[in-house]
Amino acid sequence: MQTALAEFVVRRDWQQFHTPKNLAMALAGEAGELLELFQWLTPEQAAQIMHTPEQAERVRHELADVLSYLLRLADVLEVDLAAALGKRFS
Amino acid sequence: MQTALAEFVVRRDWQQFHTPKNLAMALAGEAGELLELFQWLTPEQAAQIMHTPEQAERVRHELADVLSYLLRLADVLEVDLAAALGKRFS
Amino acid sequence: MQTALAEFVVRRDWQQFHTPKNLAMALAGEAGELLELFQWLTPEQAAQIMHTPEQAERVRHELADVLSYLLRLADVLEVDLAAALGKRFS
Amino acid sequence: MQTALAEFVVRRDWQQFHTPKNLAMALAGEAGELLELFQWLTPEQAAQIMHTPEQAERVRHELADVLSYLLRLADVLEVDLAAALGKRFS
Repeated sequence: MQTALAEFVVRRDWQQFHTPKNLAMALAGEAGELLELFQWLTPEQAAQIMHTPEQAERVRHELADVLSYLLRLADVLEVDLAAALGKRFS
Repeated sequence: MQTALAEFVVRRDWQQFHTPKNLAMALAGEAGELLELFQWLTPEQAAQIMHTPEQAERVRHELADVLSYLLRLADVLEVDLAAALGKRFS
Repeated sequence: MQTALAEFVVRRDWQQFHTPKNLAMALAGEAGELLELFQWLTPEQAAQIMHTPEQAERVRHELADVLSYLLRLADVLEVDLAAALGKRFS
Repeated sequence: MQTALAEFVVRRDWQQFHTPKNLAMALAGEAGELLELFQWLTPEQAAQIMHTPEQAERVRHELADVLSYLLRLADVLEVDLAAALGKRFS
């Protein structure tokens, strides 16, 4: 996924914007958009969010956006995410 | 990774806390901690962050934390992250 | 400002949503929107953001949104923000 | 408050770091720390957070930090926060 994403970025000439600092901001911005999907829901409503197709689509969309910036950031910093996660939870 | 993480959570009896709303908050909180590593750095300093072992370790740690909550959130919402990412960037 | 905002909320019957947890999420969500205005700008471009009327309007809009949720959160938690700030920086 | 804070910053020679981009990041980072105080609490526990002195102190501390960066950002961008808020909610 990281390689496909890097190629996507190169095709659009976005590398110039994809500095570590900018990507950390973009990741936090997308995490904020994800928050907004849940902020006015009760815990019960939040647990049912995927049962509403339109809301489910927005959730998948935001999760993908968070993942994309996380992968980009790991890529430009040359961090092996799987190894980092394994070390953190071992 | 998602399965290993889910087992880690079950062993600690954390499922009760891992509601979609709480996990979205935790993800944004970790994205905020990642931001803090970069906020006072110039773009040039940020680009060199992995050359300082202590800072590099903190970056890997925070990236892993973001990933862990992203995987947990996808897990409890039953979202296929790879499919969501593929759809978003196709 | 806090009182005017509280009345605004009451008129719309939003108190039910304005729990501390939800307001903390809304505050972070708005801080994320503010981030998005700056994330792809160079430091030089960011320093000039108020010279573009449309961007300046968006900045004022997001700063006001952050302030509004900060005031609401302080209100429902009965925190004296000025006192808290004074104590923090004395 | 904005003036007192600006003087505090000058005394520490922090102006060089207080660019709009960096301050937007710091604001989002503090909003993330605030989130972390609430993320594992039930809505009921969150509503009682100020009844625990240690937690109450952390909440006041984080609210003050968010406010301080919001005021700094408004200061460097020359935004009149009260006017921006008034316009937003009129």
